[in-house]
Amino acid sequence: MIKVVEVSLRDGLQNEKLILPTHKKKALLQKLLAAGVKEIEVTSFVHPTWIPQLADADQLASQLPFAADVNYRALVPNKKGIERALQTPIHEYAVFISASESHNRKNIHKGIRETFPVLKEVVEEAAGYGKKVRGYVSVVFGCPYEGKVPPSQVVSVCEQLFKLGVYEISLGDTIGVATPTQVKEVLTLLAKEFPAEKLAVHFHDTRGTGLVNAYVALECGITTFDSALGGLGGCPYALGASGNLATEDLLYMLHGMGLNTGIDLDALCETSRWLERELRKKLPSKVLQSYPKKKHRS
Amino acid sequence: MIKVVEVSLRDGLQNEKLILPTHKKKALLQKLLAAGVKEIEVTSFVHPTWIPQLADADQLASQLPFAADVNYRALVPNKKGIERALQTPIHEYAVFISASESHNRKNIHKGIRETFPVLKEVVEEAAGYGKKVRGYVSVVFGCPYEGKVPPSQVVSVCEQLFKLGVYEISLGDTIGVATPTQVKEVLTLLAKEFPAEKLAVHFHDTRGTGLVNAYVALECGITTFDSALGGLGGCPYALGASGNLATEDLLYMLHGMGLNTGIDLDALCETSRWLERELRKKLPSKVLQSYPKKKHRS
Repeated sequence: MIKVVEVSLRDGLQNEKLILPTHKKKALLQKLLAAGVKEIEVTSFVHPTWIPQLADADQLASQLPFAADVNYRALVPNKKGIERALQTPIHEYAVFISASESHNRKNIHKGIRETFPVLKEVVEEAAGYGKKVRGYVSVVFGCPYEGKVPPSQVVSVCEQLFKLGVYEISLGDTIGVATPTQVKEVLTLLAKEFPAEKLAVHFHDTRGTGLVNAYVALECGITTFDSALGGLGGCPYALGASGNLATEDLLYMLHGMGLNTGIDLDALCETSRWLERELRKKLPSKVLQSYPKKKHRS
Repeated sequence: MIKVVEVSLRDGLQNEKLILPTHKKKALLQKLLAAGVKEIEVTSFVHPTWIPQLADADQLASQLPFAADVNYRALVPNKKGIERALQTPIHEYAVFISASESHNRKNIHKGIRETFPVLKEVVEEAAGYGKKVRGYVSVVFGCPYEGKVPPSQVVSVCEQLFKLGVYEISLGDTIGVATPTQVKEVLTLLAKEFPAEKLAVHFHDTRGTGLVNAYVALECGITTFDSALGGLGGCPYALGASGNLATEDLLYMLHGMGLNTGIDLDALCETSRWLERELRKKLPSKVLQSYPKKKHRS
Protein backbone atom coordinates (compact mmCIF):
# COMPACT_ATOMS: atom_id res chain seq x y z
CA MET A 1 0.00 0.00 0.00
CA ILE A 2 1.38 3.38 -1.06
CA LYS A 3 0.50 6.47 0.98
CA VAL A 4 -0.36 9.44 -1.22
CA VAL A 5 -0.50 12.78 0.59
CA GLU A 6 -2.78 15.18 -1.29
CA VAL A 7 -1.29 18.68 -1.03
CA SER A 8 -3.44 20.57 -3.57
CA LEU A 9 -5.37 22.51 -0.93
CA ARG A 10 -2.16 23.86 0.56
CA ASP A 11 0.83 23.67 -1.80
CA GLY A 12 -1.53 23.89 -4.77
CA LEU A 13 -3.93 26.68 -3.92
CA GLN A 14 -1.34 28.89 -2.19
CA ASN A 15 0.11 29.68 -5.60
CA GLU A 16 -3.18 30.47 -7.39
CA LYS A 17 -4.18 34.00 -8.29
CA LEU A 18 -7.84 33.19 -7.81
CA ILE A 19 -8.63 32.71 -4.11
CA LEU A 20 -10.95 29.74 -3.74
CA PRO A 21 -13.66 30.57 -1.19
CA THR A 22 -13.89 28.40 1.94
CA HIS A 23 -17.12 26.65 0.90
CA LYS A 24 -15.49 25.63 -2.38
CA LYS A 25 -12.51 24.23 -0.49
CA LYS A 26 -14.96 22.21 1.60
CA ALA A 27 -16.59 20.95 -1.58
CA LEU A 28 -13.14 19.96 -2.85
CA LEU A 29 -12.45 18.10 0.41
CA GLN A 30 -15.74 16.20 0.07
CA LYS A 31 -14.83 15.16 -3.46
CA LEU A 32 -11.36 14.04 -2.40
CA LEU A 33 -12.85 11.96 0.42
CA ALA A 34 -15.34 10.42 -2.01
CA ALA A 35 -12.41 9.46 -4.27
CA GLY A 36 -10.80 7.61 -1.37
CA VAL A 37 -8.08 10.11 -0.45
CA LYS A 38 -7.09 9.56 3.19
CA GLU A 39 -4.13 11.89 3.70
CA ILE A 40 -4.96 15.53 3.04
CA GLU A 41 -2.88 18.61 3.73
CA VAL A 42 -5.63 21.13 4.20
CA THR A 43 -4.00 24.48 4.84
CA SER A 44 -1.18 26.39 6.49
CA PHE A 45 -1.29 28.35 9.76
CA VAL A 46 1.17 30.96 8.57
CA HIS A 47 0.28 34.61 9.07
CA PRO A 48 -2.75 35.37 6.85
CA THR A 49 -0.95 38.25 5.11
CA TRP A 50 1.83 35.90 3.93
CA ILE A 51 -0.46 33.70 1.89
CA PRO A 52 -3.87 35.31 1.34
CA GLN A 53 -5.07 32.19 -0.48
CA LEU A 54 -4.90 30.30 2.83
CA ALA A 55 -6.06 33.17 5.08
CA ASP A 56 -9.19 31.14 5.88
CA ALA A 57 -7.09 28.44 7.61
CA ASP A 58 -8.88 28.69 10.99
CA GLN A 59 -12.32 28.78 9.41
CA LEU A 60 -11.67 25.90 7.00
CA ALA A 61 -9.93 23.73 9.58
CA SER A 62 -12.88 24.14 11.95
CA GLN A 63 -15.35 22.88 9.35
CA LEU A 64 -13.60 19.78 8.04
CA PRO A 65 -15.99 17.12 6.78
CA PHE A 66 -15.93 14.21 9.21
CA ALA A 67 -14.50 10.94 7.95
CA ALA A 68 -13.40 8.20 10.33
CA ASP A 69 -10.10 7.20 8.78
CA VAL A 70 -8.91 10.43 7.22
CA ASN A 71 -5.79 12.21 8.38
CA TYR A 72 -6.08 15.98 8.01
CA ARG A 73 -2.77 17.82 8.02
CA ALA A 74 -1.71 21.45 8.18
CA LEU A 75 1.50 23.43 8.05
CA VAL A 76 2.42 25.14 11.31
CA PRO A 77 5.40 27.51 11.10
CA ASN A 78 5.73 28.61 14.73
CA LYS A 79 4.17 28.97 18.20
CA LYS A 80 1.47 31.36 16.99
CA GLY A 81 0.59 28.88 14.28
CA ILE A 82 0.22 25.97 16.65
CA GLU A 83 -1.98 28.01 19.00
CA ARG A 84 -4.34 28.49 16.08
CA ALA A 85 -4.04 24.89 14.88
CA LEU A 86 -4.85 23.52 18.33
CA GLN A 87 -8.26 25.24 18.16
CA THR A 88 -9.13 22.98 15.19
CA PRO A 89 -9.56 19.22 14.71
CA ILE A 90 -6.49 18.98 12.40
CA HIS A 91 -4.84 15.62 13.18
CA GLU A 92 -1.28 16.21 12.15
CA TYR A 93 1.02 19.21 11.84
CA ALA A 94 4.01 19.90 9.66
CA VAL A 95 6.96 22.19 10.25
CA PHE A 96 9.25 23.34 7.46
CA ILE A 97 12.84 24.30 6.93
CA SER A 98 15.11 24.54 3.89
CA ALA A 99 18.19 22.51 3.07
CA SER A 100 19.94 25.67 1.91
CA GLU A 101 20.69 28.72 4.03
CA SER A 102 19.63 31.27 1.39
CA HIS A 103 16.27 29.65 0.66
CA ASN A 104 15.55 29.36 4.36
CA ARG A 105 16.27 33.05 4.85
CA LYS A 106 14.07 34.03 1.89
CA ASN A 107 11.26 31.71 2.98
CA ILE A 108 11.35 31.94 6.80
CA HIS A 109 13.44 35.12 7.28
CA LYS A 110 15.82 33.24 9.57
CA GLY A 111 18.98 31.20 9.23
CA ILE A 112 18.68 27.39 9.41
CA ARG A 113 20.28 27.31 12.86
CA GLU A 114 17.88 29.89 14.31
CA THR A 115 14.91 28.06 12.80
CA PHE A 116 15.33 24.83 14.78
CA PRO A 117 14.40 26.36 18.18
CA VAL A 118 11.19 27.73 16.58
CA LEU A 119 10.32 24.28 15.21
CA LYS A 120 11.21 22.68 18.54
CA GLU A 121 8.55 24.74 20.27
CA VAL A 122 5.95 23.54 17.77
CA VAL A 123 6.94 19.87 18.02
CA GLU A 124 6.99 19.93 21.83
CA GLU A 125 3.69 21.75 22.09
CA ALA A 126 2.14 19.30 19.59
CA ALA A 127 3.49 16.32 21.53
CA GLY A 128 1.77 17.65 24.65
CA TYR A 129 -1.52 17.31 22.80
CA GLY A 130 -0.70 13.93 21.32
CA LYS A 131 -0.31 15.34 17.81
CA LYS A 132 2.21 13.97 15.33
CA VAL A 133 4.45 16.38 13.47
CA ARG A 134 5.93 15.93 10.00
CA GLY A 135 9.05 17.78 8.94
CA TYR A 136 9.35 19.31 5.48
CA VAL A 137 12.77 19.95 4.02
CA SER A 138 12.66 22.31 1.02
CA VAL A 139 15.08 22.64 -1.91
CA VAL A 140 16.68 19.25 -1.14
CA PHE A 141 17.82 18.72 -4.73
CA GLY A 142 18.64 22.27 -5.69
CA CYS A 143 18.21 25.83 -4.48
CA PRO A 144 17.25 28.80 -6.69
CA TYR A 145 19.95 30.88 -4.99
CA GLU A 146 22.72 28.39 -4.22
CA GLY A 147 22.33 25.75 -6.93
CA LYS A 148 23.03 22.13 -6.01
CA VAL A 149 22.70 21.41 -2.30
CA PRO A 150 25.34 19.07 -0.81
CA PRO A 151 23.60 15.82 0.20
CA SER A 152 25.53 15.87 3.51
CA GLN A 153 23.74 19.14 4.33
CA VAL A 154 20.39 17.44 3.70
CA VAL A 155 21.39 14.58 6.02
CA SER A 156 22.40 17.07 8.71
CA VAL A 157 19.09 19.01 8.53
CA CYS A 158 17.13 15.73 8.60
CA GLU A 159 19.12 14.50 11.60
CA GLN A 160 18.29 17.61 13.57
CA LEU A 161 14.63 17.45 12.54
CA PHE A 162 14.29 13.82 13.68
CA LYS A 163 16.02 14.78 16.95
CA LEU A 164 13.34 17.41 17.51
CA GLY A 165 10.77 14.63 17.31
CA VAL A 166 9.19 14.76 13.85
CA TYR A 167 7.87 11.30 12.93
CA GLU A 168 8.47 11.66 9.20
CA ILE A 169 10.37 13.93 6.85
CA SER A 170 9.14 14.95 3.42
CA LEU A 171 11.99 15.78 1.04
CA GLY A 172 10.98 18.58 -1.29
CA ASP A 173 12.29 19.25 -4.78
CA THR A 174 10.83 22.73 -4.45
CA ILE A 175 12.03 24.08 -7.78
CA GLY A 176 11.74 20.80 -9.69
CA VAL A 177 15.36 20.33 -10.72
CA ALA A 178 16.07 16.80 -9.47
CA THR A 179 17.22 14.07 -11.81
CA PRO A 180 17.06 10.31 -11.16
CA THR A 181 20.77 9.96 -10.36
CA GLN A 182 20.53 12.70 -7.77
CA VAL A 183 17.38 11.27 -6.16
CA LYS A 184 19.08 7.89 -5.91
CA GLU A 185 22.23 9.46 -4.45
CA VAL A 186 20.40 11.48 -1.79
CA LEU A 187 17.95 8.73 -0.84
CA THR A 188 20.69 6.10 -0.66
CA LEU A 189 22.62 8.36 1.70
CA LEU A 190 19.55 9.11 3.83
CA ALA A 191 18.51 5.44 3.94
CA LYS A 192 21.81 4.67 5.66
CA GLU A 193 20.86 7.03 8.49
CA PHE A 194 17.10 6.71 8.74
CA PRO A 195 14.46 4.05 7.96
CA ALA A 196 12.89 4.57 4.50
CA GLU A 197 9.38 4.43 6.01
CA LYS A 198 10.15 7.65 7.87
CA LEU A 199 10.89 9.46 4.60
CA ALA A 200 8.46 10.90 2.08
CA VAL A 201 9.14 12.63 -1.23
CA HIS A 202 7.59 15.82 -2.55
CA PHE A 203 8.43 16.36 -6.19
CA HIS A 204 7.60 19.27 -8.45
CA ASP A 205 7.24 18.66 -12.16
CA THR A 206 8.86 21.90 -13.34
CA ARG A 207 11.18 20.08 -15.76
CA GLY A 208 9.06 16.98 -16.33
CA THR A 209 11.08 14.78 -13.97
CA GLY A 210 8.48 14.54 -11.18
CA LEU A 211 7.22 11.10 -12.10
CA VAL A 212 10.57 9.51 -12.92
CA ASN A 213 11.92 10.81 -9.62
CA ALA A 214 8.94 9.27 -7.82
CA TYR A 215 9.73 5.97 -9.55
CA VAL A 216 13.35 6.14 -8.42
CA ALA A 217 12.22 6.96 -4.86
CA LEU A 218 9.90 3.96 -4.97
CA GLU A 219 12.83 1.80 -6.01
CA CYS A 220 14.75 3.21 -3.02
CA GLY A 221 12.01 1.95 -0.69
CA ILE A 222 9.98 5.15 -0.25
CA THR A 223 6.25 4.49 0.20
CA THR A 224 4.90 7.98 0.97
CA PHE A 225 4.44 10.45 -1.90
CA ASP A 226 3.15 14.01 -1.86
CA SER A 227 1.24 15.14 -4.92
CA ALA A 228 -1.41 17.63 -5.95
CA LEU A 229 -4.64 17.23 -7.86
CA GLY A 230 -4.12 18.14 -11.52
CA GLY A 231 -0.51 19.12 -10.87
CA LEU A 232 -1.65 22.35 -9.23
CA GLY A 233 0.72 24.61 -7.43
CA GLY A 234 4.26 25.54 -6.78
CA CYS A 235 6.15 27.57 -4.23
CA PRO A 236 5.52 31.33 -4.40
CA TYR A 237 8.96 32.01 -2.86
CA ALA A 238 10.98 29.83 -5.20
CA LEU A 239 11.99 31.32 -8.54
CA GLY A 240 10.85 29.20 -11.46
CA ALA A 241 8.89 26.77 -9.30
CA SER A 242 5.86 25.34 -11.05
CA GLY A 243 3.31 22.62 -10.42
CA ASN A 244 3.54 19.76 -7.98
CA LEU A 245 3.69 16.25 -9.33
CA ALA A 246 0.08 15.58 -10.40
CA THR A 247 -1.77 13.04 -8.27
CA GLU A 248 -3.43 11.63 -11.40
CA ASP A 249 -0.08 11.01 -13.11
CA LEU A 250 1.36 9.43 -9.96
CA LEU A 251 -1.69 7.16 -9.56
CA TYR A 252 -1.66 6.14 -13.22
CA MET A 253 1.90 4.94 -12.81
CA LEU A 254 1.45 3.31 -9.41
CA HIS A 255 -1.78 1.53 -10.32
CA GLY A 256 -0.26 0.48 -13.64
CA MET A 257 2.57 -1.08 -11.65
CA GLY A 258 0.03 -3.08 -9.64
CA LEU A 259 0.44 -0.93 -6.51
CA ASN A 260 -2.53 0.01 -4.39
CA THR A 261 -3.26 3.56 -3.20
CA GLY A 262 -6.92 3.18 -2.20
CA ILE A 263 -7.77 6.14 -4.45
CA ASP A 264 -10.15 6.01 -7.42
CA LEU A 265 -8.40 7.61 -10.38
CA ASP A 266 -11.61 8.24 -12.32
CA ALA A 267 -13.21 10.02 -9.36
CA LEU A 268 -10.04 12.06 -8.97
CA CYS A 269 -10.10 13.12 -12.64
CA GLU A 270 -13.73 14.20 -12.26
CA THR A 271 -12.66 16.24 -9.23
CA SER A 272 -9.89 17.90 -11.23
CA ARG A 273 -12.33 18.78 -14.00
CA TRP A 274 -14.52 20.42 -11.36
CA LEU A 275 -11.49 22.29 -9.96
CA GLU A 276 -10.52 23.44 -13.46
CA ARG A 277 -13.95 25.00 -13.80
CA GLU A 278 -13.71 26.66 -10.38
CA LEU A 279 -10.22 28.04 -11.03
CA ARG A 280 -11.06 28.87 -14.66
CA LYS A 281 -7.85 27.31 -15.92
CA LYS A 282 -6.49 24.07 -17.36
CA LEU A 283 -4.47 21.97 -14.95
CA PRO A 284 -1.22 20.47 -16.25
CA SER A 285 -1.73 16.77 -15.37
CA LYS A 286 -1.16 14.69 -18.52
CA VAL A 287 -3.50 11.94 -17.35
CA LEU A 288 -6.19 14.57 -16.84
CA GLN A 289 -5.59 15.99 -20.32
CA SER A 290 -5.99 12.55 -21.87
CA TYR A 291 -8.98 11.61 -19.72
CA PRO A 292 -11.95 11.12 -22.07
CA LYS A 293 -14.22 14.17 -22.15
CA LYS A 294 -17.47 12.23 -22.25
CA LYS A 295 -16.81 10.72 -18.84
CA HIS A 296 -16.65 14.17 -17.22
CA ARG A 297 -19.79 15.58 -18.61
CA SER A 298 -22.10 12.83 -17.40
CA MET B 1 26.89 8.09 -25.56
CA ILE B 2 23.11 8.01 -25.94
CA LYS B 3 21.62 8.20 -29.44
CA VAL B 4 18.64 10.54 -29.61
CA VAL B 5 16.57 10.28 -32.79
CA GLU B 6 14.74 13.54 -33.44
CA VAL B 7 11.32 12.74 -34.88
CA SER B 8 9.62 16.16 -34.71
CA LEU B 9 9.74 16.73 -38.47
CA ARG B 10 7.91 13.48 -39.13
CA ASP B 11 5.99 12.17 -36.09
CA GLY B 12 5.64 15.72 -34.79
CA LEU B 13 4.55 17.75 -37.80
CA GLN B 14 2.35 15.03 -39.29
CA ASN B 15 -0.18 15.72 -36.54
CA GLU B 16 -0.23 19.51 -36.79
CA LYS B 17 -3.13 21.40 -38.32
CA LEU B 18 -0.85 24.10 -39.62
CA ILE B 19 1.24 22.77 -42.51
CA LEU B 20 4.79 24.04 -42.13
CA PRO B 21 6.10 25.15 -45.55
CA THR B 22 9.18 23.38 -46.91
CA HIS B 23 11.54 26.33 -46.43
CA LYS B 24 10.53 26.50 -42.75
CA LYS B 25 11.25 22.79 -42.38
CA LYS B 26 14.68 23.44 -43.85
CA ALA B 27 15.18 26.25 -41.35
CA LEU B 28 14.20 23.84 -38.59
CA LEU B 29 16.71 21.28 -39.87
CA GLN B 30 19.48 23.91 -39.86
CA LYS B 31 18.68 24.81 -36.26
CA LEU B 32 18.64 21.14 -35.21
CA LEU B 33 22.03 20.61 -36.86
CA ALA B 34 23.41 23.70 -35.12
CA ALA B 35 22.21 22.26 -31.78
CA GLY B 36 24.21 19.10 -32.44
CA VAL B 37 21.40 16.74 -33.44
CA LYS B 38 22.85 13.94 -35.58
CA GLU B 39 19.90 11.57 -36.08
CA ILE B 40 16.91 13.20 -37.76
CA GLU B 41 13.77 11.60 -39.11
CA VAL B 42 12.90 14.08 -41.80
CA THR B 43 9.70 12.92 -43.43
CA SER B 44 7.60 10.01 -44.63
CA PHE B 45 7.22 8.73 -48.18
CA VAL B 46 3.61 7.72 -47.70
CA HIS B 47 1.07 8.78 -50.33
CA PRO B 48 0.79 12.60 -50.13
CA THR B 49 -2.98 12.46 -49.61
CA TRP B 50 -2.54 10.35 -46.45
CA ILE B 51 -0.54 12.97 -44.59
CA PRO B 52 -0.78 16.39 -46.28
CA GLN B 53 1.65 17.82 -43.72
CA LEU B 54 4.38 15.64 -45.24
CA ALA B 55 3.27 15.94 -48.87
CA ASP B 56 6.51 17.82 -49.60
CA ALA B 57 8.60 14.72 -48.77
CA ASP B 58 10.36 14.52 -52.16
CA GLN B 59 11.05 18.26 -52.30
CA LEU B 60 12.31 18.50 -48.70
CA ALA B 61 14.42 15.33 -48.91
CA SER B 62 16.10 16.66 -52.06
CA GLN B 63 17.16 19.88 -50.33
CA LEU B 64 18.61 18.58 -47.07
CA PRO B 65 21.31 20.80 -45.61
CA PHE B 66 24.62 19.00 -45.96
CA ALA B 67 26.35 17.93 -42.76
CA ALA B 68 29.09 15.32 -42.77
CA ASP B 69 28.09 13.19 -39.80
CA VAL B 70 24.31 13.53 -39.83
CA ASN B 71 22.03 10.60 -40.48
CA TYR B 72 18.84 11.65 -42.27
CA ARG B 73 16.01 9.17 -41.97
CA ALA B 74 12.59 8.79 -43.58
CA LEU B 75 9.62 6.47 -43.31
CA VAL B 76 9.05 4.30 -46.34
CA PRO B 77 5.82 2.28 -46.31
CA ASN B 78 6.10 0.32 -49.55
CA LYS B 79 7.70 -0.12 -52.98
CA LYS B 80 6.30 3.15 -54.27
CA GLY B 81 7.72 4.90 -51.24
CA ILE B 82 11.20 3.52 -51.72
CA GLU B 83 11.22 4.46 -55.37
CA ARG B 84 10.64 8.05 -54.27
CA ALA B 85 13.11 7.83 -51.38
CA LEU B 86 15.87 6.50 -53.65
CA GLN B 87 15.69 9.72 -55.65
CA THR B 88 16.84 11.61 -52.55
CA PRO B 89 19.98 11.63 -50.40
CA ILE B 90 18.11 10.21 -47.34
CA HIS B 91 20.58 7.89 -45.59
CA GLU B 92 18.31 5.51 -43.78
CA TYR B 93 14.77 4.23 -44.21
CA ALA B 94 12.19 2.96 -41.77
CA VAL B 95 9.34 0.54 -42.31
CA PHE B 96 6.44 0.25 -39.90
CA ILE B 97 4.02 -2.34 -38.64
CA SER B 98 1.79 -2.64 -35.57
CA ALA B 99 1.99 -5.15 -32.75
CA SER B 100 -1.80 -5.49 -32.84
CA GLU B 101 -3.86 -6.71 -35.78
CA SER B 102 -6.58 -4.04 -35.45
CA HIS B 103 -4.17 -1.11 -35.30
CA ASN B 104 -2.25 -2.47 -38.28
CA ARG B 105 -5.47 -2.72 -40.29
CA LYS B 106 -6.52 0.83 -39.35
CA ASN B 107 -3.05 2.23 -40.05
CA ILE B 108 -1.87 0.24 -43.06
CA HIS B 109 -5.18 -1.25 -44.31
CA LYS B 110 -3.69 -4.75 -44.20
CA GLY B 111 -3.34 -7.55 -41.69
CA ILE B 112 0.05 -8.02 -39.98
CA ARG B 113 0.76 -11.15 -42.00
CA GLU B 114 0.08 -9.48 -45.34
CA THR B 115 2.23 -6.49 -44.32
CA PHE B 116 5.51 -8.41 -44.06
CA PRO B 117 5.87 -9.12 -47.81
CA VAL B 118 5.37 -5.38 -48.49
CA LEU B 119 8.11 -4.50 -45.98
CA LYS B 120 10.33 -7.23 -47.38
CA GLU B 121 10.30 -5.56 -50.79
CA VAL B 122 11.40 -2.27 -49.19
CA VAL B 123 14.19 -3.83 -47.11
CA GLU B 124 15.53 -5.84 -50.07
CA GLU B 125 15.40 -2.90 -52.45
CA ALA B 126 17.13 -0.71 -49.83
CA ALA B 127 19.85 -3.33 -49.29
CA GLY B 128 20.54 -3.28 -53.02
CA TYR B 129 21.43 0.40 -52.64
CA GLY B 130 23.40 -0.10 -49.42
CA LYS B 131 20.77 1.63 -47.31
CA LYS B 132 20.00 0.56 -43.76
CA VAL B 133 16.40 0.04 -42.73
CA ARG B 134 14.94 0.52 -39.27
CA GLY B 135 11.74 -1.26 -38.25
CA TYR B 136 9.04 0.53 -36.26
CA VAL B 137 6.62 -1.50 -34.20
CA SER B 138 3.55 0.53 -33.14
CA VAL B 139 1.25 0.05 -30.15
CA VAL B 140 3.75 -2.23 -28.39
CA PHE B 141 2.41 -1.42 -24.92
CA GLY B 142 -1.25 -1.05 -25.70
CA CYS B 143 -3.62 -0.72 -28.64
CA PRO B 144 -6.56 1.73 -28.81
CA TYR B 145 -8.73 -1.07 -30.22
CA GLU B 146 -7.47 -4.21 -28.50
CA GLY B 147 -6.11 -2.92 -25.18
CA LYS B 148 -3.02 -4.59 -23.77
CA VAL B 149 -0.89 -6.34 -26.37
CA PRO B 150 0.60 -9.70 -25.33
CA PRO B 151 4.41 -9.30 -25.07
CA SER B 152 4.84 -12.60 -26.93
CA GLN B 153 3.09 -11.00 -29.91
CA VAL B 154 5.62 -8.15 -29.80
CA VAL B 155 8.48 -10.65 -29.74
CA SER B 156 7.00 -12.47 -32.73
CA VAL B 157 6.60 -9.29 -34.81
CA CYS B 158 10.16 -8.21 -33.91
CA GLU B 159 11.52 -11.62 -34.84
CA GLN B 160 9.96 -11.42 -38.28
CA LEU B 161 11.17 -7.85 -38.77
CA PHE B 162 14.76 -8.76 -37.90
CA LYS B 163 14.49 -11.74 -40.26
CA LEU B 164 13.54 -9.33 -43.05
CA GLY B 165 16.83 -7.55 -42.43
CA VAL B 166 16.04 -4.41 -40.43
CA TYR B 167 19.14 -3.39 -38.43
CA GLU B 168 17.22 -1.89 -35.50
CA ILE B 169 13.68 -1.91 -34.14
CA SER B 170 12.02 1.06 -32.50
CA LEU B 171 9.33 0.02 -30.03
CA GLY B 172 6.47 2.53 -30.05
CA ASP B 173 4.11 3.33 -27.22
CA THR B 174 1.90 4.96 -29.82
CA ILE B 175 -0.97 5.89 -27.50
CA GLY B 176 1.20 6.58 -24.45
CA VAL B 177 -0.23 4.01 -22.05
CA ALA B 178 2.91 2.18 -20.94
CA THR B 179 3.90 1.98 -17.29
CA PRO B 180 7.37 1.18 -15.92
CA THR B 181 6.50 -2.41 -14.96
CA GLN B 182 5.25 -3.10 -18.46
CA VAL B 183 8.28 -1.51 -20.13
CA LYS B 184 10.57 -3.62 -17.95
CA GLU B 185 8.55 -6.77 -18.72
CA VAL B 186 8.54 -6.29 -22.49
CA LEU B 187 12.18 -5.17 -22.71
CA THR B 188 13.39 -7.99 -20.47
CA LEU B 189 11.61 -10.46 -22.73
CA LEU B 190 12.98 -8.86 -25.90
CA ALA B 191 16.50 -8.66 -24.47
CA LYS B 192 16.48 -12.44 -24.19
CA GLU B 193 15.94 -12.72 -27.93
CA PHE B 194 17.79 -9.72 -29.36
CA PRO B 195 20.77 -7.54 -28.39
CA ALA B 196 19.67 -4.37 -26.56
CA GLU B 197 21.72 -2.20 -28.94
CA LYS B 198 19.41 -3.29 -31.76
CA LEU B 199 16.38 -1.93 -29.91
CA ALA B 200 15.18 1.66 -29.61
CA VAL B 201 12.22 3.08 -27.72
CA HIS B 202 9.67 5.58 -28.93
CA PHE B 203 7.52 6.85 -26.09
CA HIS B 204 4.57 9.18 -26.16
CA ASP B 205 3.84 11.30 -23.12
CA THR B 206 0.04 11.10 -23.28
CA ARG B 207 -0.25 10.11 -19.63
CA GLY B 208 2.96 11.68 -18.35
CA THR B 209 4.90 8.39 -18.29
CA GLY B 210 7.16 9.10 -21.29
CA LEU B 211 10.21 10.06 -19.28
CA VAL B 212 9.92 7.42 -16.57
CA ASN B 213 9.53 4.79 -19.27
CA ALA B 214 12.67 6.12 -20.98
CA TYR B 215 14.48 5.81 -17.65
CA VAL B 216 13.34 2.21 -17.25
CA ALA B 217 14.42 1.45 -20.82
CA LEU B 218 17.81 2.97 -20.07
CA GLU B 219 18.09 0.68 -17.05
CA CYS B 220 17.26 -2.25 -19.36
CA GLY B 221 20.26 -1.35 -21.54
CA ILE B 222 18.54 0.65 -24.28
CA THR B 223 20.73 3.45 -25.68
CA THR B 224 18.62 4.74 -28.58
CA PHE B 225 15.66 7.02 -27.82
CA ASP B 226 13.18 8.66 -30.17
CA SER B 227 11.83 12.04 -29.11
CA ALA B 228 10.41 15.21 -30.61
CA LEU B 229 11.30 18.84 -30.13
CA GLY B 230 8.97 20.44 -27.58
CA GLY B 231 6.96 17.23 -27.24
CA LEU B 232 5.32 17.87 -30.59
CA GLY B 233 3.18 15.31 -32.28
CA GLY B 234 1.23 12.15 -31.94
CA CYS B 235 -0.27 9.56 -34.23
CA PRO B 236 -3.24 10.80 -36.27
CA TYR B 237 -4.58 7.23 -36.53
CA ALA B 238 -4.43 6.38 -32.82
CA LEU B 239 -7.34 7.52 -30.67
CA GLY B 240 -6.18 9.62 -27.73
CA ALA B 241 -2.57 9.78 -28.88
CA SER B 242 -0.83 12.99 -27.96
CA GLY B 243 2.69 14.35 -27.97
CA ASN B 244 5.92 12.45 -28.30
CA LEU B 245 8.31 12.44 -25.38
CA ALA B 246 9.88 15.92 -25.56
CA THR B 247 13.54 15.96 -26.58
CA GLU B 248 14.21 18.75 -24.05
CA ASP B 249 12.77 16.70 -21.16
CA LEU B 250 14.71 13.62 -22.24
CA LEU B 251 17.97 15.60 -22.52
CA TYR B 252 17.44 17.31 -19.16
CA MET B 253 17.20 13.90 -17.52
CA LEU B 254 20.02 12.26 -19.47
CA HIS B 255 22.45 15.16 -19.05
CA GLY B 256 21.48 15.42 -15.37
CA MET B 257 22.41 11.76 -15.07
CA GLY B 258 25.83 12.54 -16.52
CA LEU B 259 25.06 10.92 -19.88
CA ASN B 260 26.23 12.46 -23.11
CA THR B 261 23.98 13.04 -26.13
CA GLY B 262 26.10 15.54 -28.08
CA ILE B 263 23.12 17.90 -28.18
CA ASP B 264 23.05 21.42 -26.73
CA LEU B 265 19.90 21.74 -24.61
CA ASP B 266 19.91 25.55 -24.65
CA ALA B 267 20.14 25.65 -28.43
CA LEU B 268 17.34 23.11 -28.61
CA CYS B 269 15.10 25.23 -26.37
CA GLU B 270 15.76 28.26 -28.57
CA THR B 271 14.76 26.12 -31.56
CA SER B 272 11.53 25.11 -29.84
CA ARG B 273 10.71 28.75 -29.09
CA TRP B 274 11.17 29.47 -32.77
CA LEU B 275 8.93 26.51 -33.69
CA GLU B 276 6.28 27.70 -31.22
CA ARG B 277 6.18 31.02 -33.06
CA GLU B 278 5.99 29.29 -36.45
CA LEU B 279 3.22 26.92 -35.36
CA ARG B 280 1.50 29.63 -33.30
CA LYS B 281 1.06 27.33 -30.33
CA LYS B 282 2.70 26.43 -27.05
CA LEU B 283 4.58 23.15 -27.06
CA PRO B 284 4.10 20.82 -24.08
CA SER B 285 7.74 20.20 -23.02
CA LYS B 286 8.08 21.01 -19.31
CA VAL B 287 11.74 21.93 -19.66
CA LEU B 288 10.79 24.35 -22.42
CA GLN B 289 8.06 25.87 -20.25
CA SER B 290 10.52 26.46 -17.42
CA TYR B 291 13.28 27.71 -19.72
CA PRO B 292 13.99 31.34 -18.78
CA LYS B 293 12.31 33.78 -21.15
CA LYS B 294 15.21 36.27 -21.29
CA LYS B 295 17.46 33.66 -22.85
CA HIS B 296 15.11 33.19 -25.83
CA ARG B 297 14.67 36.78 -26.80
CA SER B 298 18.33 37.58 -27.25
